[in-house]
Amino acid sequence: MLVVKVGGSEGINYDAFLQDLAGHEQVILVHGGSHELNNISATLGHPPRFVTSVSGFTSRFTDRETMDMFNMVYAGKINKMIVEKLQALNRNAVGLSGIDGRLLEGPQKRSLKVIENGRKKILRGDMSGRVEKVNVHLLSLLLDNGYLPVLTPPAISFESSAINVDGDRCAASIAGAVGAQELIILSNVPGLLRNPEDEKSLIRSIPRAEIDEHIDLYAQGRMKKKLLGAKEALEAGVGKVTLGDARKSSPLQLALDGNGTVIQ
Amino acid sequence: MLVVKVGGSEGINYDAFLQDLAGHEQVILVHGGSHELNNISATLGHPPRFVTSVSGFTSRFTDRETMDMFNMVYAGKINKMIVEKLQALNRNAVGLSGIDGRLLEGPQKRSLKVIENGRKKILRGDMSGRVEKVNVHLLSLLLDNGYLPVLTPPAISFESSAINVDGDRCAASIAGAVGAQELIILSNVPGLLRNPEDEKSLIRSIPRAEIDEHIDLYAQGRMKKKLLGAKEALEAGVGKVTLGDARKSSPLQLALDGNGTVIQ
Repeated sequence: MLVVKVGGSEGINYDAFLQDLAGHEQVILVHGGSHELNNISATLGHPPRFVTSVSGFTSRFTDRETMDMFNMVYAGKINKMIVEKLQALNRNAVGLSGIDGRLLEGPQKRSLKVIENGRKKILRGDMSGRVEKVNVHLLSLLLDNGYLPVLTPPAISFESSAINVDGDRCAASIAGAVGAQELIILSNVPGLLRNPEDEKSLIRSIPRAEIDEHIDLYAQGRMKKKLLGAKEALEAGVGKVTLGDARKSSPLQLALDGNGTVIQ
Repeated sequence: MLVVKVGGSEGINYDAFLQDLAGHEQVILVHGGSHELNNISATLGHPPRFVTSVSGFTSRFTDRETMDMFNMVYAGKINKMIVEKLQALNRNAVGLSGIDGRLLEGPQKRSLKVIENGRKKILRGDMSGRVEKVNVHLLSLLLDNGYLPVLTPPAISFESSAINVDGDRCAASIAGAVGAQELIILSNVPGLLRNPEDEKSLIRSIPRAEIDEHIDLYAQGRMKKKLLGAKEALEAGVGKVTLGDARKSSPLQLALDGNGTVIQ
């Protein structure tokens, strides 16, 4: 089993990527939609608010209104666009969010400790959390019957609220739960860069034991969560995680061939 | 098996309705989202365009941009809102569009003969059509494993394009395909009215043989398609179709008890 995460940042070549993906038999796709959500929520008069936690991770503050827009963009526009394209490529895709069938379940964060303007602050009303439980039964039901699952946040809390969860870590949970041999995380960068300004400074491989060190030394912004996801996937038994470039013309095949940052 | 369609018009009491629905064991829900789509598409700068066919039926002209917004509102916002509420009511709902798993499949209309400003006109570029085939296998897979299917247009064309299909007729196709005993169609009116301006002029029952006559004499706007859907459902073997009022405090139970327009 192969689990592939494709980001929602600018510049991603979905057609090339899905062409690649359609050639794989046993595969689960997880996708994002952050760039499009930023656009839509701004147009709808509720611009995105990003906060930085005390541990240095950046995330979207998700109130109820943002969650409605999140569903619109992730579970509506992007998910169905991908499913439609896969159907046209002759793959019987089924798109689901983590709410559907309690596919991705976990605790909601009670409050968020953030740093704003250099000061620590506690934020409430954030509909976010993390995935602790994957409904493998529903995934197997689909896979065993020839369907290709196309999955997206939000997840669902133990109290049955929609919760925003990080897509990369969510893909890691899924890969671990289904016993995937490999997790590929594609976004609009070549992988982990030694210098974020220089795409030629790609770090080609990270030994498992040195992930934390790499998070501290090189990872910025969303790359921190990708590495955290990679670490969680390996801890859950996934053999190999590759961070690859979704802007290429054959992005999945290139990543499978070892292009990008390979973590094992 | 019971199939329930709940409309997407203004004034629908979703909480009361879903509370009712959650009490039924073998049930499939189909929903709309037209009112919200009108709002969102206007805000996003692409206001809705409605056209009237030469046979007198009104429908939304669905270009690619409208289809993206359609997915956002129907498959994103409304579908996941319903699934989240059902999960909170302890029902393991799974939301799918007709694209997912080719659940609802049919021909795309090549062109649309409409009347605009009193003149006949042929419109192209409309992503709409009708449902001819229902993937009963996927529905059974979900139902047999304890999931409550929450379904929404769009459907998928035989050439794998998303197509806008009428929700009432789509619910009729589903009810026929799964061999439902009963189809309930709820919207923001009490049923078919003799005089659309007077809610007390409700027609309480229509014999099967008199549906066409009632379409010609009393049905206006969207009510025409509800009656057409009712006719198609009965033709496909459904025992009874009830048009009920979704604004009530116990809307599904009232309709099951015979309140509304009963067609059999």
